Amino acid sequence: MIGFFPDERAPGPALLDRFEAMIGASHVLASAADMAPYLVEPRDLYQGRALCVLRPGSTQEVAAILRLCNETYTPVVPQGGNTGLVGGQTPDETGRAIVISLQRMRALREIDLASNTMTVEAGMVLATAQAEAERAGRLFPLSLASEGSCTIGGNLASNGGGTSVIAYGNARDLTLGIEAVLADGRIYRGLSKLKKDNTGYDLKDLFVGSEGTLGIITAAVLKLFPRPAAVATAFIALPSPAAALALLDLARERCGGEITAFELAPRIGLEFVLAHCEGARDPLAQAAPWYALLELSSQSADGLDERLLQLLENAADRALIRDAAVAASLDQRKAFWRLRDELSDAQRHEGGSIKHDVSVPVADIARFLTEVEAALAAAAPGARLVAFGHLGDGNIHCNVSQPVGADKAAFLARWDEINTIVHGVVARYGGSISAEHGIGQLKRDLLPSVKDPVALDLMRALKATLDPNGILNPGKLL
Amino acid sequence: MIGFFPDERAPGPALLDRFEAMIGASHVLASAADMAPYLVEPRDLYQGRALCVLRPGSTQEVAAILRLCNETYTPVVPQGGNTGLVGGQTPDETGRAIVISLQRMRALREIDLASNTMTVEAGMVLATAQAEAERAGRLFPLSLASEGSCTIGGNLASNGGGTSVIAYGNARDLTLGIEAVLADGRIYRGLSKLKKDNTGYDLKDLFVGSEGTLGIITAAVLKLFPRPAAVATAFIALPSPAAALALLDLARERCGGEITAFELAPRIGLEFVLAHCEGARDPLAQAAPWYALLELSSQSADGLDERLLQLLENAADRALIRDAAVAASLDQRKAFWRLRDELSDAQRHEGGSIKHDVSVPVADIARFLTEVEAALAAAAPGARLVAFGHLGDGNIHCNVSQPVGADKAAFLARWDEINTIVHGVVARYGGSISAEHGIGQLKRDLLPSVKDPVALDLMRALKATLDPNGILNPGKLL
Repeated sequence: MIGFFPDERAPGPALLDRFEAMIGASHVLASAADMAPYLVEPRDLYQGRALCVLRPGSTQEVAAILRLCNETYTPVVPQGGNTGLVGGQTPDETGRAIVISLQRMRALREIDLASNTMTVEAGMVLATAQAEAERAGRLFPLSLASEGSCTIGGNLASNGGGTSVIAYGNARDLTLGIEAVLADGRIYRGLSKLKKDNTGYDLKDLFVGSEGTLGIITAAVLKLFPRPAAVATAFIALPSPAAALALLDLARERCGGEITAFELAPRIGLEFVLAHCEGARDPLAQAAPWYALLELSSQSADGLDERLLQLLENAADRALIRDAAVAASLDQRKAFWRLRDELSDAQRHEGGSIKHDVSVPVADIARFLTEVEAALAAAAPGARLVAFGHLGDGNIHCNVSQPVGADKAAFLARWDEINTIVHGVVARYGGSISAEHGIGQLKRDLLPSVKDPVALDLMRALKATLDPNGILNPGKLL
Repeated sequence: MIGFFPDERAPGPALLDRFEAMIGASHVLASAADMAPYLVEPRDLYQGRALCVLRPGSTQEVAAILRLCNETYTPVVPQGGNTGLVGGQTPDETGRAIVISLQRMRALREIDLASNTMTVEAGMVLATAQAEAERAGRLFPLSLASEGSCTIGGNLASNGGGTSVIAYGNARDLTLGIEAVLADGRIYRGLSKLKKDNTGYDLKDLFVGSEGTLGIITAAVLKLFPRPAAVATAFIALPSPAAALALLDLARERCGGEITAFELAPRIGLEFVLAHCEGARDPLAQAAPWYALLELSSQSADGLDERLLQLLENAADRALIRDAAVAASLDQRKAFWRLRDELSDAQRHEGGSIKHDVSVPVADIARFLTEVEAALAAAAPGARLVAFGHLGDGNIHCNVSQPVGADKAAFLARWDEINTIVHGVVARYGGSISAEHGIGQLKRDLLPSVKDPVALDLMRALKATLDPNGILNPGKLL
């Protein structure tokens, strides 16, 4: 096939005029000041340039934009709440790309209580989706640190995870159907509410998690759940990650489907939070090496606290736990969760931090953590591993804080080296170097070293099939 | 690309020799008698011919076979337990295809209790997988009528459903990773145990549900669950499907995650079972228009029967139910389930039956059934609609028995006409013409009339990308 070279076909001003005609001049941002918030991601790791930022108001407008971009070989970077942690939402430095912000497309199209579904546009903020579900007497369980600003479209593009995955699954599992615009502007209309539909290939899951490289998700049908009638939360002191795993097993045996969170944190993480977060206090009298935050939820109001207490007593009898506090009020529950939620942020006050979003098979977590700790101690003595996260999903964020008093820049210069060490242990356990954040720019060059080569070939073939001109989020993921 | 015409390149005898060299002569079946069981499906709807039936013993052997088939443009029909209901496992009548039976590949490769996973080969029978899980103290919840002979590979290729979908999801949801051989013989190694892995496109779900048209699944990592400590089962008389939906809502509110089955059946279906199944008896004193089989399961042994009874009392207070029997023993539970499980088979004794495997949004089921009933009454007076199945999934099998005393052949000759009527109502509700059985040959020609044209285009593009020579299960699905 004969193509045009992009530079011959993407004359900036002419394109801008055509975009303005499509979606209205006020929704085409082209000045440096207007574009600035869209071109840098929150942690300042990536900064890009763009021809313009477009804020379409409808699926049809997104389709029109993509048709033109495809014809003119103009790179397109889709963006939701701009909260991604791997640079997937940031354009490169050439300034040739356009950014499409979905933030204006934030309508609740429908809520269907009998089907327990909610149809929302991609730009709806996650917290808004949670609130809409709550207003209707339902639960939309996806819950992330950035829920106040991240959008459903971004959640789906990156297959967001968070603390409720153990009970409800990740963004993929919470989505019944999607609407997406393809690279050439065609609209895939897959807004199905069906729980079961075996009429062909699973297209929905091809787009979910594809980080905007195969199409732009414009709307989704999300699953809703009953709101729990009772919630019981415990902050638990443990001797080791192995004990935490045994506690999780015991909880599964006793309370099965009632476990809605099981988060792990090390003492050093708690200490950082206690030191740097105003008002934070340790719920337990004595320090312990590890902590778990366990939450049970139930549809029947009766007996949940008792079941939690009984579980904790049994666990204490088996020496799995050292101590535990059960939240006696909503305020206490919030205080326990704050200790968990601030773990990542608290590290900022301890100098440089080299982050890992890894997962291994749940069974291997304890051995995995021991090996990571030993490997880091050998390579970077004094570096402080804060290994916390979603134990039940095998997803532990192994964030490494610099040694006390070390030079921040010198420590951060070892980013790739430390990554290689941690990811080496991950590989030995058949784990993942991106459990929930995606690949984006940050891990793109790591992918070939960890991925089955046939899987990589298949991914490249799918990309070439769905986006033959390579306009969709180029340089991301692949 | 220049290709060879199949007939020039697939000289039967030469191919047979090469297959024998690959997998051993005893595993290459070429006589009519040896091949017969593989060439006809259980209901006799489809009968095909084949060059030979191959029974490889390893993934490497499957890979070698596919490499040769791809080079020689030889069509390949993968087959598991040969229990599919849409002809997906039957070759066409040209006799050019080879059948690859996965039945020899039935090993349990690993069971990992800490990770709650089981790695099995594709040819393992579903009931064996259930038994292996049970032996290890776990539950593998997939449950289908054909579980005694269907295989895991077939379950995954067709994304099997069944009665436990409401609680545990379908085959797709129960699978963490797969190994699959591609059309050209490359092996995709995706046997991941990870609960979370956001490193690229979701390839697993591309193969699951693709009915053997994109690759041959050779092994899978399946999710295991704790065995419930208590199960409570009720056989419930209801005035209407709308009341059944309201009961399901109430059950969700009260018992949430404990609902492990919610099946609907009409009086006429029960009557067929009572008339034709030896020993079957009505658990309730008075006839009712509709019945539900509700099962709750719990990890805690205490109080489940009481919760079920309380739910039923509440439902009776609201006039949602007319009567109910709660199983007091395992035998009673089995007897209730038999009334459900025999519904389809019992219809055979009532003459011709035109079947539909449809789903609609759960909220619309009552209206949908009213419309189907009216449309059938107008078009085929006296025909008896037996609408039963998985209410909680929106998946009702609308099987239509011939009028009493009518001519069977004449009734069955109206198959397409009756399909069109039922599928027309399905389409008005945004439903699916194949909720759980797949497309195969049976519904292939219906697909274009019900599927989003962009979705169809995408499916064809994916097929061309993954199977450029079109050797994998040609004529099925697309």
